Amino acid sequence: MGTIITLTTDFGLKDPYQGAMKGAILSVNPDARLVDISHDVPPGDILTGAYILMEACRWYPPGTVHLAVVDPGVGSSRRPVVIETERYFFVGPDNGLVSEAARADRIKRVIIPENKDFFNNEISSTFHGRDVFGPVAAHLSLGVDPALIGPVVDSATVITLPAAEASAGAVSGEVIYIDSFGNIITNISGIRLLSDASPEDVTVEIEGTRIKGLKRSYFEAPDNDAIALVGSSGRVEIACNGLSAAELLRVSTGDKVTIRVALR
Amino acid sequence: MGTIITLTTDFGLKDPYQGAMKGAILSVNPDARLVDISHDVPPGDILTGAYILMEACRWYPPGTVHLAVVDPGVGSSRRPVVIETERYFFVGPDNGLVSEAARADRIKRVIIPENKDFFNNEISSTFHGRDVFGPVAAHLSLGVDPALIGPVVDSATVITLPAAEASAGAVSGEVIYIDSFGNIITNISGIRLLSDASPEDVTVEIEGTRIKGLKRSYFEAPDNDAIALVGSSGRVEIACNGLSAAELLRVSTGDKVTIRVALR
Amino acid sequence: MGTIITLTTDFGLKDPYQGAMKGAILSVNPDARLVDISHDVPPGDILTGAYILMEACRWYPPGTVHLAVVDPGVGSSRRPVVIETERYFFVGPDNGLVSEAARADRIKRVIIPENKDFFNNEISSTFHGRDVFGPVAAHLSLGVDPALIGPVVDSATVITLPAAEASAGAVSGEVIYIDSFGNIITNISGIRLLSDASPEDVTVEIEGTRIKGLKRSYFEAPDNDAIALVGSSGRVEIACNGLSAAELLRVSTGDKVTIRVALR
Repeated sequence: MGTIITLTTDFGLKDPYQGAMKGAILSVNPDARLVDISHDVPPGDILTGAYILMEACRWYPPGTVHLAVVDPGVGSSRRPVVIETERYFFVGPDNGLVSEAARADRIKRVIIPENKDFFNNEISSTFHGRDVFGPVAAHLSLGVDPALIGPVVDSATVITLPAAEASAGAVSGEVIYIDSFGNIITNISGIRLLSDASPEDVTVEIEGTRIKGLKRSYFEAPDNDAIALVGSSGRVEIACNGLSAAELLRVSTGDKVTIRVALR
Repeated sequence: MGTIITLTTDFGLKDPYQGAMKGAILSVNPDARLVDISHDVPPGDILTGAYILMEACRWYPPGTVHLAVVDPGVGSSRRPVVIETERYFFVGPDNGLVSEAARADRIKRVIIPENKDFFNNEISSTFHGRDVFGPVAAHLSLGVDPALIGPVVDSATVITLPAAEASAGAVSGEVIYIDSFGNIITNISGIRLLSDASPEDVTVEIEGTRIKGLKRSYFEAPDNDAIALVGSSGRVEIACNGLSAAELLRVSTGDKVTIRVALR
Repeated sequence: MGTIITLTTDFGLKDPYQGAMKGAILSVNPDARLVDISHDVPPGDILTGAYILMEACRWYPPGTVHLAVVDPGVGSSRRPVVIETERYFFVGPDNGLVSEAARADRIKRVIIPENKDFFNNEISSTFHGRDVFGPVAAHLSLGVDPALIGPVVDSATVITLPAAEASAGAVSGEVIYIDSFGNIITNISGIRLLSDASPEDVTVEIEGTRIKGLKRSYFEAPDNDAIALVGSSGRVEIACNGLSAAELLRVSTGDKVTIRVALR
């Protein structure tokens, strides 16, 4: 079977762009197996794209090529990048989009694709997903040695998702993602939190709302109240069964969250 | 070639969820062939998910595994279920989502997946699509005997789509689905109706509007009037060529429909 | 590996329609490799569908079957059509949807599918994507001689995307597509324009706005001003980095565009 190539972009699903990129990949490797992670990253939102990629990519089998394109700097001097990790290849613009996901695995090599033998014959200045990143991902999926594609460099551009800070009895963090159900996902590790505290000792404060205790599941929300829980990403989430917690609490990405732990 | 696994969920296409579930499946069976039916079931709407699955699944070749996840009770005591039918496997939460589609085929066995060897190593309490249903579907696609996955039980949870009722000269039913074109789909079998009556003898009454006769195709709608016809699901539909009939007639799912047949 | 079949429709992604069509294809050829180009063509908008198909299809490898269904005349006397070109098969309703894309390649034969052996057993009058076009595309992907499917005819129905007109020092054209980023795509070939003129000698006039010069990339837009450039389709585009140019300039498909070239 052909190698799996996952796709994460802000191209949307209506326009010809993601379909053209898939064609360019399949013209290089007709056996590649394309799997859509998301084409609905908000336009130009590198941080959101990085989060979506990071959360989805880690479930794929070793050998998968993860191609991601959220590329507001296309045509500028920003470089393309290939990051080879213990298990995967990541391909995209070198703007931080793929670096957080790559760091979650173990980075082996960073390569800057420069060899035009592995690009399309003609390269537009506005669509490198089709003309550069797609073909490079396809060649990698064929087993091409990445060192042939360009020089190895020391590091890729990094954007770091904001980190939570712990102090005595409290953790301060922020909202890093709001999903389509309206669940509010924070950058606070629920797994680490529950290694020190019991679920009932925790109080979550967000935009003037205080939520006592951590529940286990969405359906435990009483009377459409917001609840806090450790979500499927291992992070603390605020949710509201059947309603959008983000709308209910008027919360946006970047808003502050504080978790206090009662001392016993 | 790998076995086909279809996917029907309310995960949406933006978030990492459907991409993560696909990764979990491909990590168990890298040769599985994933086909999206829909990820846009309205959040938590089991009945709509059941309708979409039922209408799409029956066109797939024998041996297909149909995986569906609309799971408002995730983390509660609701069980997972595998239903083996004459032609397919159905996998999902045991909340009725897959039962109507399975009954349309012939049910052979109902299994409750309990053997954690066939789940992810760690199981979140909020995302069983990734941690339970996806891996189980992937193991079934590899040919694992379902009896190894859990005990055989007598029956699965059933939710029945509302049934139409026939009386002398009339059939009473309701709207069960409104599609993206605004076509209004009822639970009244057009095939059965036309075994007793001619298309011109039929009058459809819906929310104060009377539509005389059954047309054959959407384009026969005169002057943007609503028409009735037997749609591609074999059910009576109300449509309006180029406009949303649901908006025009202010109709929603659950609204009553009566069809009268003129006596000759 | 199985043959690639691309899909371009106005079915949307929520309803069971595209999933049912995929099932009908896979029931004929379980090895077909389905690739979505777009299911979000605006309902019944043949011209937009033709544009999306044309822009995406040309990146696929030879032997690809391109299946497209935007079919407001389904059930009427409009015919189905197969167009065999130098590199591809195109399958869809004979309403012009596929003809522009086929003409961009070199047309070898036009066939009208009439042999019901290659259709579904039962054919609805409202869903030929599932019952006619899908099965025909699947049979072509298996290598069936198109001459077995129906008679060869002289020509297919053609709809032509509006053409630009050049006069001394100016080119008059119009807006043919607005993408999801709000980029305004015209029918004026930027490649031809720049064979005669330097980028700085060009002035684009659209709906009362004058834009001087052609930039190379989106990121060159200063202060959220609209810029003109040659986009990835080779056509002149008007864009606005990070904003929708179409909203900013209140431009719609069909609006006039004039490009003046300064004489030296």
